[in-house]
Amino acid sequence: MSQRRQRGRPAGGSTGDTRAAILDAARSQFASQGYTGASLRSIAREAGVDASLISHYFGDKSQLLVATMELPVNPIEKITGVVAGGVDGMGERLLRTFLTAWDPHRDAFSALVRTQLASADAQVPMVQLMRDVVTHKVADVLEGDERKLRAALVASQLIGMALARYVVLLDPLPDTSVDDVVGRYAPSLQRLMDG
Amino acid sequence: MSQRRQRGRPAGGSTGDTRAAILDAARSQFASQGYTGASLRSIAREAGVDASLISHYFGDKSQLLVATMELPVNPIEKITGVVAGGVDGMGERLLRTFLTAWDPHRDAFSALVRTQLASADAQVPMVQLMRDVVTHKVADVLEGDERKLRAALVASQLIGMALARYVVLLDPLPDTSVDDVVGRYAPSLQRLMDG
Repeated sequence: MSQRRQRGRPAGGSTGDTRAAILDAARSQFASQGYTGASLRSIAREAGVDASLISHYFGDKSQLLVATMELPVNPIEKITGVVAGGVDGMGERLLRTFLTAWDPHRDAFSALVRTQLASADAQVPMVQLMRDVVTHKVADVLEGDERKLRAALVASQLIGMALARYVVLLDPLPDTSVDDVVGRYAPSLQRLMDG
Repeated sequence: MSQRRQRGRPAGGSTGDTRAAILDAARSQFASQGYTGASLRSIAREAGVDASLISHYFGDKSQLLVATMELPVNPIEKITGVVAGGVDGMGERLLRTFLTAWDPHRDAFSALVRTQLASADAQVPMVQLMRDVVTHKVADVLEGDERKLRAALVASQLIGMALARYVVLLDPLPDTSVDDVVGRYAPSLQRLMDG
């Protein structure tokens, strides 16, 4: 309860106040406990609200993490849609969905990477999102052996692509059409997915 | 000449002073002009030395860039060795050489990425090295169409792999043996190299 008072937000106040208190508590818990260590219950306790209220406002833990990041794109919705189609053609769907979603927000992506990677802390939200949410969702849909390793390699390729296209600006990648990038790159992703 | 005096290093002094003056001037020129814009002549002018002295001490422009970075690994020597073998099996050689060189220096790599990517400036040395040196050397040895795009994609995969293994720590990649990583990942690189 003391944390709630420290934050100066009455959790029993308006909807906006409650949401803000939950997001504050979530940022604090994800930073200190990591995505795996933090629980909706511990976040609710810090925010001084009932855990069911978090689910009501934000959904599950992964969606709460994304909400703390205030992104122009909702990666959970995107990745959930991609994996729902199964492993067939998932390399192309993953890459096309990622690029189509982020291409209009290149500057935001670049700023996000620069801010978050600069921290020596492995618990920054973007890393948690890639490592603890996206990679798991990909691994869950793969078949065959070493699914976790193959999912991590898929994620690493996606990270590399995004860095090269939006941050490091490896000519001619930033200006290559989505179709051309997908045509060249998706088969490599698919190969890892097929195992 | 005024710059030389500002830097307070007599270019005609000891070897150490001269080397330091050249490195200072190189850092300054690469930062302001970019790797492509900077020339050994302009760097020599700023350092107050003859351009031939730079070649004598450091070699060519790419080697001078690497010297300014004070890395525990010399990427120019590594990439030159890799491309010398031609495109056959280059995916495996590139990945194995990269990982074998940097695995003992994970922390240095991570610190380098965090420091340099945090800068919103596209002229940081590591980006210049990847974009203007390594990618070009790879493109030069490829055959077929879209060599520049394919080289950029190869570089992006290498960046993604390094980020995932050394910085973002995508489980289980940091602890996967070089042989296993190469076995899973090199075919994707080779596919892009073969076109």
